[in-house]
Amino acid sequence: MAENKIVLSGMRPTGKLHLGNFHGALKNWVSLQGKYDCYFFVADLHSLTTAYQHTENLAQNSEDMLIDWLTAGLDPQKCTIFIQSDVPQISELNTLLGMITPLGWLLRNPTYKEQIQELLKQKYAGQLDEKSLGEKIASIAGDDEISCFGFLGYPVLMATDILIQQAAYVPVGKDQTAHLEIARDLTRRFAEIYGEQVFTEPQPLYTTVARVPGIDGRKMSKSYNNAISLGEDLDSVRKKVMSMFTDPNKKGAHDPANPEGCVAYAFHKIYNPNVSKRCEECKAGALGCVACKKELFALMEPELVAFSERRKLFEGDKAQLAQIVKDGKARACQNAEQTLQRVKRVMRMIK
Amino acid sequence: MAENKIVLSGMRPTGKLHLGNFHGALKNWVSLQGKYDCYFFVADLHSLTTAYQHTENLAQNSEDMLIDWLTAGLDPQKCTIFIQSDVPQISELNTLLGMITPLGWLLRNPTYKEQIQELLKQKYAGQLDEKSLGEKIASIAGDDEISCFGFLGYPVLMATDILIQQAAYVPVGKDQTAHLEIARDLTRRFAEIYGEQVFTEPQPLYTTVARVPGIDGRKMSKSYNNAISLGEDLDSVRKKVMSMFTDPNKKGAHDPANPEGCVAYAFHKIYNPNVSKRCEECKAGALGCVACKKELFALMEPELVAFSERRKLFEGDKAQLAQIVKDGKARACQNAEQTLQRVKRVMRMIK
Repeated sequence: MAENKIVLSGMRPTGKLHLGNFHGALKNWVSLQGKYDCYFFVADLHSLTTAYQHTENLAQNSEDMLIDWLTAGLDPQKCTIFIQSDVPQISELNTLLGMITPLGWLLRNPTYKEQIQELLKQKYAGQLDEKSLGEKIASIAGDDEISCFGFLGYPVLMATDILIQQAAYVPVGKDQTAHLEIARDLTRRFAEIYGEQVFTEPQPLYTTVARVPGIDGRKMSKSYNNAISLGEDLDSVRKKVMSMFTDPNKKGAHDPANPEGCVAYAFHKIYNPNVSKRCEECKAGALGCVACKKELFALMEPELVAFSERRKLFEGDKAQLAQIVKDGKARACQNAEQTLQRVKRVMRMIK
Repeated sequence: MAENKIVLSGMRPTGKLHLGNFHGALKNWVSLQGKYDCYFFVADLHSLTTAYQHTENLAQNSEDMLIDWLTAGLDPQKCTIFIQSDVPQISELNTLLGMITPLGWLLRNPTYKEQIQELLKQKYAGQLDEKSLGEKIASIAGDDEISCFGFLGYPVLMATDILIQQAAYVPVGKDQTAHLEIARDLTRRFAEIYGEQVFTEPQPLYTTVARVPGIDGRKMSKSYNNAISLGEDLDSVRKKVMSMFTDPNKKGAHDPANPEGCVAYAFHKIYNPNVSKRCEECKAGALGCVACKKELFALMEPELVAFSERRKLFEGDKAQLAQIVKDGKARACQNAEQTLQRVKRVMRMIK
């Protein structure tokens, strides 16, 4: 058997993406697609675990995000791109794995507790005294809007995404290892109960991703209005680059400055191969912020142009996008169906 | 729109059925299939909610039960017969409905609490002191083998079975109304959240079913070895009828006796149109038990013969059975897919 090089990763459909998303995850996906057998999916079912009441833009967000994936350089010829809810086998295996997942595993999941706390605090901000809020947080059935069955079970769904595709590797950040742990535990528990190892035990694929700040220095976020979108018009990006937050203590072009905290410098770290030289220049007051930003934009420009060109190939072409989604669905379903059939046989549901 | 006359009911695959199952449920199904648009399913997913560790005979039990349904008179031309896990849309909707089902609904489900208690008591019989057992029962995550996620969620799965087929009626016993209640509550909750009524609110279809005892007077059960199987050989049934438990105080053929508690009398109640006359005769000592049982067998014989004849048509014909299951799957999937597409549109998962 050929070495299993399947990689799986997903993203909740939050709509249009920005350079923060690109450097934080997408760029890594693009680099993986040549080296591994990659499955990348729009995690629309996962978005329902917490936002089931706010689905007004769900389908549109999925579409917008897909266009941005293609903009970023994901190539449907080199990887499998699909929408989670397009693959019935995921829900089928999710139902089956739920049967063997101890409630204790889910209740002890630290992310679950944290998220419940966070959601309850948001909902009842200022409306409940500490004691009542604490009681709601302590009770697993604390709030009918927030504490839903699917939310408690999201680690099962996450494990299912991985196991159904037999992913050998999952790109993870430090905060996501707990989810991978439940997937790994389930492969072992399944084998113990049914006497056969059906699933690949997934390994974390630690990769270096970069964090870029928003142009005002805060976290880049659509809601802060400080983001540079993927595929944003070049003139617009140029203006944003020129308005990036810099060291406020630098008054004149040749004053020495502190590059730490400077947004332009944070971007140079990514785009400038001679960033250490720039650091020295900045500290020495060797060049002004305007010149530094112009150079930054020039360094960014080839990538931005590549984004624009790819974007033009897909944007507005509903038929092509539909075909990509359809092909991805077919490939993801085919791979998933093989796993599901084995699972059903080993569980003796079919002969 | 034509009046919705969809009826849905399912049975866990326990293997070969007996006359207790026939009179307790199947006979009612047979009578419904002409009057309603009936969907009857082998609830193999449900059997996993409590017996996920004991699936050795699951596929065989499903097949055996299907043959018994046909033996009893279910006609694939008049109703849709399918296996639950053959319909991916059930798992898909189950996953979606789980997202909106408050944990509190499931935790407050009295059947859940009772079943957890029952299963824990069985598992730890004599091994745990009262206090430790009580603690396990009180804790929702009390036991990793018993308290699984799928078990907590079985009312969601049950609601899904009903709602995905748009069933207007569900034949229920008194102890099952709670399950129907969650299905009804979910139709309303879905409409409140997403602003559109997609599901038919199912109504209970109260029907009279008969309970027959086993030949020894206890509950008829395969494990008590007191059952008459569906499609059992006529000679074998005759012997069992002749050995039915009767009033032990009746020594001679013409002694008066008490028909209450007599198994033959319990069967006469079902098969004998003149049962009240027989009751008087028994009390008066007008005839002996042997004569009474012979008459009973004669009354049962036409039905038993019909069973045997139908059974011959299906038993051993794997191809025909496979075709019935395939056709049923196709019909159930088609009906379910219509509901699922509407659900996804209303939830804005698709445009």
